[in-house]
Amino acid sequence: MLVRNLLGARFKETPKDCQIASHALMMKGGYMKFMCAGSYSLFTPAKRIMRKIEEIIREEMDRVGGQEVLFPVVMPASLWEESGRYTSIGSEMARFTDRNGTKMVLGMTHEEAAVHLARDIAKSYTDFPFMIYQIQTKFRDEPRARGGLIRVREFTMKDAYSFHTSQSDLEGYYERVYEAYNRIFRRAGVKNFIAVKSDSGMMGGSVSHEFMLLTEIGEDTLAVCENGDCDYRANVEVADCITHRVESSKEELREVHTPGVKTIADLGKTLGVDPTRTCKAVLYRENATDGLVVVFLRGDLEVNETKLRNHLGVEVHPASGVQEEDGVVPGFVGPVGFSGKAKVVFDRSLSGIDSLCCGANKKDYHFIGMNIGRDVGDPEFVEVAKAYNGGICPVCGKPTIRLFRGIEIGNIFQLGTKYTKSMDMTYVDTDGSRKNPIMGCYGIGVGRLCASVCEEQHDAYGPVWPITIAPWEIEICCLQSEDGEVKGVADRLYENLTARGREVLYDDRDIRAGAMFADADLFGIPVRVVVSRKTCDRQVVEISFRDKSFKGETPLEGAENFIEEKVKELYARYL
Amino acid sequence: MLVRNLLGARFKETPKDCQIASHALMMKGGYMKFMCAGSYSLFTPAKRIMRKIEEIIREEMDRVGGQEVLFPVVMPASLWEESGRYTSIGSEMARFTDRNGTKMVLGMTHEEAAVHLARDIAKSYTDFPFMIYQIQTKFRDEPRARGGLIRVREFTMKDAYSFHTSQSDLEGYYERVYEAYNRIFRRAGVKNFIAVKSDSGMMGGSVSHEFMLLTEIGEDTLAVCENGDCDYRANVEVADCITHRVESSKEELREVHTPGVKTIADLGKTLGVDPTRTCKAVLYRENATDGLVVVFLRGDLEVNETKLRNHLGVEVHPASGVQEEDGVVPGFVGPVGFSGKAKVVFDRSLSGIDSLCCGANKKDYHFIGMNIGRDVGDPEFVEVAKAYNGGICPVCGKPTIRLFRGIEIGNIFQLGTKYTKSMDMTYVDTDGSRKNPIMGCYGIGVGRLCASVCEEQHDAYGPVWPITIAPWEIEICCLQSEDGEVKGVADRLYENLTARGREVLYDDRDIRAGAMFADADLFGIPVRVVVSRKTCDRQVVEISFRDKSFKGETPLEGAENFIEEKVKELYARYL
Repeated sequence: MLVRNLLGARFKETPKDCQIASHALMMKGGYMKFMCAGSYSLFTPAKRIMRKIEEIIREEMDRVGGQEVLFPVVMPASLWEESGRYTSIGSEMARFTDRNGTKMVLGMTHEEAAVHLARDIAKSYTDFPFMIYQIQTKFRDEPRARGGLIRVREFTMKDAYSFHTSQSDLEGYYERVYEAYNRIFRRAGVKNFIAVKSDSGMMGGSVSHEFMLLTEIGEDTLAVCENGDCDYRANVEVADCITHRVESSKEELREVHTPGVKTIADLGKTLGVDPTRTCKAVLYRENATDGLVVVFLRGDLEVNETKLRNHLGVEVHPASGVQEEDGVVPGFVGPVGFSGKAKVVFDRSLSGIDSLCCGANKKDYHFIGMNIGRDVGDPEFVEVAKAYNGGICPVCGKPTIRLFRGIEIGNIFQLGTKYTKSMDMTYVDTDGSRKNPIMGCYGIGVGRLCASVCEEQHDAYGPVWPITIAPWEIEICCLQSEDGEVKGVADRLYENLTARGREVLYDDRDIRAGAMFADADLFGIPVRVVVSRKTCDRQVVEISFRDKSFKGETPLEGAENFIEEKVKELYARYL
Repeated sequence: MLVRNLLGARFKETPKDCQIASHALMMKGGYMKFMCAGSYSLFTPAKRIMRKIEEIIREEMDRVGGQEVLFPVVMPASLWEESGRYTSIGSEMARFTDRNGTKMVLGMTHEEAAVHLARDIAKSYTDFPFMIYQIQTKFRDEPRARGGLIRVREFTMKDAYSFHTSQSDLEGYYERVYEAYNRIFRRAGVKNFIAVKSDSGMMGGSVSHEFMLLTEIGEDTLAVCENGDCDYRANVEVADCITHRVESSKEELREVHTPGVKTIADLGKTLGVDPTRTCKAVLYRENATDGLVVVFLRGDLEVNETKLRNHLGVEVHPASGVQEEDGVVPGFVGPVGFSGKAKVVFDRSLSGIDSLCCGANKKDYHFIGMNIGRDVGDPEFVEVAKAYNGGICPVCGKPTIRLFRGIEIGNIFQLGTKYTKSMDMTYVDTDGSRKNPIMGCYGIGVGRLCASVCEEQHDAYGPVWPITIAPWEIEICCLQSEDGEVKGVADRLYENLTARGREVLYDDRDIRAGAMFADADLFGIPVRVVVSRKTCDRQVVEISFRDKSFKGETPLEGAENFIEEKVKELYARYL
């Protein structure tokens, strides 16, 4: 491919809506064009990267026995009514009515379609297990599209669905896909990723993992045990929050005047109480009923809203503008004598602390010396607090929990029978009885993976694509292309390498070296070959790696062999 | 791939909604599953065929300098408002409103997206020409989905868009794509296809061609000149209708009583007038205004509604229930003294005939001896009649026009500046002036091509896939797989051929030979290898081609080599 024929502009200025490096570099490098919120057209370099990622995914899915299929993007609503998700999913699902008045939806995931495809066919236990997958366009009407291809509304996704006759068979297969995912991300060149336990959300099911690229710009927070012998790692949404024991002894309950003291930090300053010996109240409202929910937890901790939602079984949002009509005194809410119209939740972090400071449900007053058993009664303690840096690992018991930020690049779910039950998919088991198969599902967003690799592997000048997914393997930069001899040398190199089956991007434009190299940095091609008047005079070509790990030259005679060796050397990194 | 692991059921009965062979065989062979009107999920065999077709298309598009890109399926309505098609396209375009109230559409074609991608970038004449293409899902809310994958609502399409600075450059490139299309269809194994001139419809532009698979079940009618020296071929929608000269001499205009004679055939019987010497009236109504349109044409011909629409510039439909309120006498409409409230169109076929029989605009009366010049005046003759078998070729002038039925498998359009003008895409030309680039666009429906090949190449038992697009190259049928030695031989063959990079489907199920072969016929794999007790006893394997052009055996020792030779022999047919 000749750069001068390639559609796409490269430029220096960072577009002002780009908050993260991968977004900025992929815009500046001519990889994609904004069409509307969360939607981009892709130029050829990005499309080539996508195809290579897809091929890696396909190979690894086939390796674990996957069968590639294709489901429709547009599905009848009736299919989603069968599973109950037509109503349980909100406005993130796009819906329309077709010319015949039939309600249709755009697929944001395809569990329903997978069950629809398999349910008339796999009717005997001998037909199991099997896994089907597709690589297809999805549309999710994301309220917060951001970060270029990191979070979009329309995206290409590999989604896979496995069907089993026993939980243990699912678990064994789940392990295999887990390993396949590790291979996929390694082969795609991701360096710093981990798998964490996660919340199953709208997918249903119990066990699930997310594969996370560790990066400061991640939207997710992960709890990772840093004890080298332990491998505990979980999305903070589901991570256990185990607190250090707080030493205190019983005191008398005393009301103190604390005018204007509404935060835990203020309390510390005013009364000298450590936040670990305070009980704070965090207020939510249920989305559906607007009913108030009060969470009491230790003052140094934060509420884990996912756990709270899972505990309550309903959606909630932080309460704002709480009034005395609700029976609460904002800033001074405490468990002793609380009489607000609200559901009350006590976090486990409060359990076992003999003496706490808390709001007195009276403006400008707090209690100190509060003992829950004595002063409140015997509430049920549940875990709704967020794991924190230095918290105790639920597996090894050491205080080695550390929080990281991450981008989700893949997920795997043990779904159970949620869909096969609701959609009445059954098989006849060995004993003649009818059962619902047990499902697993497994997703990878192709565009997000592409952007994530860029986010992890770039410098100030452009992406540094791993050779396994780079749009081309080699870029030839021909300086002084107006010089016939130089151009002749570069042309031959391009033709010879291309004839050998190598993927070569060739820049023979008559532009300054600086501009050509700036473009080359944005293309991010792993192997760069420079041909110039100077190299021709010395009968050599210059070769360097985009990641700077190699720079050298080789005689013009036989340069193709040397370049191919270098290409193979790079591939060997990802075997 | 093992047949016993492959998801998909094969069965004998033809589903009752299947009107055509490819639809029936692809349902019976476990290629696809109906989801809703015009929408199917594809099982692995069909998906594999699709991918092979896509790869052939990709190679040929790249060969003519195409750059693969990817446009969104979901686009903002505003983009389609720019081109004017948001309103000009009717209910075949699916529309919805997103969570922010923005109007969105599902792409049924991507001219708007192509201009959107290129218009900020290609700003100088030096940036031209270029061609971008994608292979992507489209949704068209087809009122008449039918024939399995032949006419669906959701489909995978390759759509390409080229941009040029001159009409001659477009024309040269159009020729190259025309040749690329010929290569694509030949490589995909289509045997009997032709390119015909076509109507540009909603795409705009002037010159366009459709590639047509010739088949009785086609929805389109094609006019082909059968004079060996002539290559005239056109969709009947646009084919010229040139009539033989009808000899007649002037007569007097005479009214005759023709009670109950309302058709041309009746006229022939009653008055002994040849249909070529009659003038019939065909009535339409304009869709928008309901206004009547009367077409007068020679009695043996039919109206070409596409030409009529193009002539009138509005949509029309056949009039039913015409009443005397419209000022016409149904069954007796004629041009002499016609006073109906209608637009009147005279077809060219009436020109030059001295004496005609026609309705007298009076119940139960016709005229004979009607001469248009003398009795009607000097109407404008336009061409709105359909070409017919034995009609005169507009190129060679011989009466060798023959009509065929065809399925459209690809189309190419010279679009002109319709989209670049309306969407304000300009470039600076050599002389410094701003101009709109000239576009071409080029489509192939991947699923329809797959179904078309099946339609053309099947027998009563199943598809006969060309090896270039077959889901697998080789199928190994192991009969008596319960026999350890036989199974061992077949297993080894499967492993060895797979290790050589061959695509092998392996049937080692413990079922009757008849059932296994019936399934194999439905899989339609080009090379079949049979291993059985009998072949093992004789130390051979049996090999046959699905198309019956070869059947033989080869020694077990070295059978892999022989089989690979046979595979290569089949590929050589499509070079």
